[in-house]
Amino acid sequence: VAEQREIADSTHTVAILSTGDEVVEGRTVDTNASYIADRVAQLGYDVVCKLVVGDFPDRLEWAWKTALAQADVVISTGGLGPTTDDLTNETLARVAGVDLVLDEAEVAKIRGFFARVGRPMPENNVRQAMLPAGSEVVPNNLGTAPGYRLAIPTDTRRPVGVVLPGVPREMRAMLEETVLPWLAARLGPARAVVSRTFQTFGMGESAIDEAVAGLVPPEEARLAFRAAFPQVAVRVSAHGTREEAERRVKLYGDKIAARLGSVIYAEGSTTMEACVGELLRERGKTLATAESCTGGMVGNRLTNVPGSSTYYIGGVVAYSNKLKEKLLGVSRTTLSMFGAVSEETAREMAIGARRVTGADIAVATTGIAGPDGGTPDKPVGTVAVALAADGYGEDGAKSKIYQLWGNREWVKVLTSQVALDWVRRALLGLNPLESGFGQKKGKR
Amino acid sequence: VAEQREIADSTHTVAILSTGDEVVEGRTVDTNASYIADRVAQLGYDVVCKLVVGDFPDRLEWAWKTALAQADVVISTGGLGPTTDDLTNETLARVAGVDLVLDEAEVAKIRGFFARVGRPMPENNVRQAMLPAGSEVVPNNLGTAPGYRLAIPTDTRRPVGVVLPGVPREMRAMLEETVLPWLAARLGPARAVVSRTFQTFGMGESAIDEAVAGLVPPEEARLAFRAAFPQVAVRVSAHGTREEAERRVKLYGDKIAARLGSVIYAEGSTTMEACVGELLRERGKTLATAESCTGGMVGNRLTNVPGSSTYYIGGVVAYSNKLKEKLLGVSRTTLSMFGAVSEETAREMAIGARRVTGADIAVATTGIAGPDGGTPDKPVGTVAVALAADGYGEDGAKSKIYQLWGNREWVKVLTSQVALDWVRRALLGLNPLESGFGQKKGKR
Repeated sequence: VAEQREIADSTHTVAILSTGDEVVEGRTVDTNASYIADRVAQLGYDVVCKLVVGDFPDRLEWAWKTALAQADVVISTGGLGPTTDDLTNETLARVAGVDLVLDEAEVAKIRGFFARVGRPMPENNVRQAMLPAGSEVVPNNLGTAPGYRLAIPTDTRRPVGVVLPGVPREMRAMLEETVLPWLAARLGPARAVVSRTFQTFGMGESAIDEAVAGLVPPEEARLAFRAAFPQVAVRVSAHGTREEAERRVKLYGDKIAARLGSVIYAEGSTTMEACVGELLRERGKTLATAESCTGGMVGNRLTNVPGSSTYYIGGVVAYSNKLKEKLLGVSRTTLSMFGAVSEETAREMAIGARRVTGADIAVATTGIAGPDGGTPDKPVGTVAVALAADGYGEDGAKSKIYQLWGNREWVKVLTSQVALDWVRRALLGLNPLESGFGQKKGKR
Repeated sequence: VAEQREIADSTHTVAILSTGDEVVEGRTVDTNASYIADRVAQLGYDVVCKLVVGDFPDRLEWAWKTALAQADVVISTGGLGPTTDDLTNETLARVAGVDLVLDEAEVAKIRGFFARVGRPMPENNVRQAMLPAGSEVVPNNLGTAPGYRLAIPTDTRRPVGVVLPGVPREMRAMLEETVLPWLAARLGPARAVVSRTFQTFGMGESAIDEAVAGLVPPEEARLAFRAAFPQVAVRVSAHGTREEAERRVKLYGDKIAARLGSVIYAEGSTTMEACVGELLRERGKTLATAESCTGGMVGNRLTNVPGSSTYYIGGVVAYSNKLKEKLLGVSRTTLSMFGAVSEETAREMAIGARRVTGADIAVATTGIAGPDGGTPDKPVGTVAVALAADGYGEDGAKSKIYQLWGNREWVKVLTSQVALDWVRRALLGLNPLESGFGQKKGKR
């Protein structure tokens, strides 16, 4: 906490204000605030809070006052449209104690905008150019509403309000072109925040926390975990001069990477399917899938990656036993002796998929995703995964049975992640049997 | 605004608090807050504000105090994990002026959770069961962090804090199962908000807006559109006594349903795949898939529905031409004459999938999802869909080519939605060729 305090010095704090009934009532997901927060945090600003309120004069005024009391820069989106429920300009004028004045240059621009699309300007669009006195315009080249910034000094502080429209593409362009350069200039060179992020799979958040405990002195760098299951991202960040922050992040990032080993599948924001795709492409290998309980999810994830047709051949969604036999050549004896959810069936699915498709590697899933279908012997979450490749076992495959948990969708997601991690490990020359979690019931 | 003011009386206000560095810094889009806001607004609550702060003790305390001062109910997400930067429980105890006490029943549940997955419980998970004294637990059946609610009375008011985890699927289940029923009961009978929601596919939001224009007098009921593409939900809601609100919603809901016709695929929150599954089950039909550009997404969506193994046999992810030939029997001549992305290939895929699997209905997709692979003749977004069933065309199939738009994932999502809508229409005896949007390039 001491270290966090240090980051929060008084000239680098930002509050983000989103306005609009549709945002506060959840009919629109507020992507503007996330976008702004991410961009200003990357610059090294400390985002103190985000606030969202609907289009009510009193609530807007409360939100502005609250935000200005918390941060040096308040960036607001929304409320700049031409209709009577667009209240940002008059609210900020009231909060700042200044008049609204017509910006003639902006009126001319709005008229020009309508002229270009061949329509007369509705008179209420003039409202969009009534800005609080003292504002410095942030040009909007994609729409009619100008943004602006306005200092709102108090006795002791000099916070600045930055006002942008709510239309995401207009807001983003104005942020990138005008606001971020201004914010960067305001910071000066001595202060940077640098970070490295590792994507992991196979350990829970608290297990990772324990594994890396003591590696990073809190006064040197900060560790953060972000579970977006099934992966957990580990981020190390440091601040100071750029050089110093980079040195620390390199040092402690390397220590974390060494400690976590093959549980880390990528650095940066890469997905497991992109990582697998990259390895397949690098090594010139092809992949096929044989999916039962995942129902197509593994193929779907693989094909979310642009260019996946160069390495992913396709496969079979063998949801019924009939298709397992007919398209993959799983033997009826195996199905009746061991059941559809068994290492034996999974192996024959993988081997069959490899044979039928001619792929270098084939991965297979079969399991009980629930909520029905569980038995005392094979409860919901019982999943077998197998991988067939050159030199794997006496029959060309490795397999393992997992006891996973959670609801249906969750079992599918985890299974698909384990299957992809098996492919990753196979391509790296690691043992797929060491992937993932869940109680091992056996392995071959 | 007048109507909103009327709703906003003082015992029905909610503030939503999201916590976590990853949310405030924009690395995660805050979908939790939108979800909660939408659900409580539907009940008739007035969402006063949303607040987002990072994992700092002083900021969390500030946010809780600010939110409790603004609303009767504060719903928070996040900060319930097992690590030291999870601070919600201790913050709320401090704000409420009570101690943290170990909830033995919840510790036992957490131990049980780890026992089921065959791992020892890390000791720091015990922290998750240290709850502010006086809390009433909101059970979490999907994870280890219990939620709770806690009254935090002041001299003049009696606001309540509701604490939920940040993991969306846990939060949603807990909100739906425990929190919303409690919030609904709290409202009492004299003040009801009643709504009906229709799920549609095939028209854009503004086209629907135009189609239903004038149907619903604004003083009688309120219309809202929520685009969660590819579907657009249309909600009609009314408030007043329950009886009166129900009468109006029935009346105007029926008018909307009659106007939109088969564009509506379900009432309520049903997904397209659940709707298709229900129809297949009712009619005792089986389905197979032959997917190229969707890569398994159609099968994945179908198998997200519990019990789908009773009607979904499986299929082939024929991502490569080789698998289209080998597993589905698409002729080499067709592939070379018309190309992989053509009505002809799609028809042979659907017919082949039906023949190979023995399913009553087979649906096929083939297209160019991009960003590469487009040609002047067949740009990115060119997609062919086909459906094979008894009595369809001279060869047993219908097909159509669409020009869709958007990025890779988007083209896949839209294509899978069109494919499922074709199955729905076929099962209802409607013409699949009337589904969806996108410029028609042809049909057979």
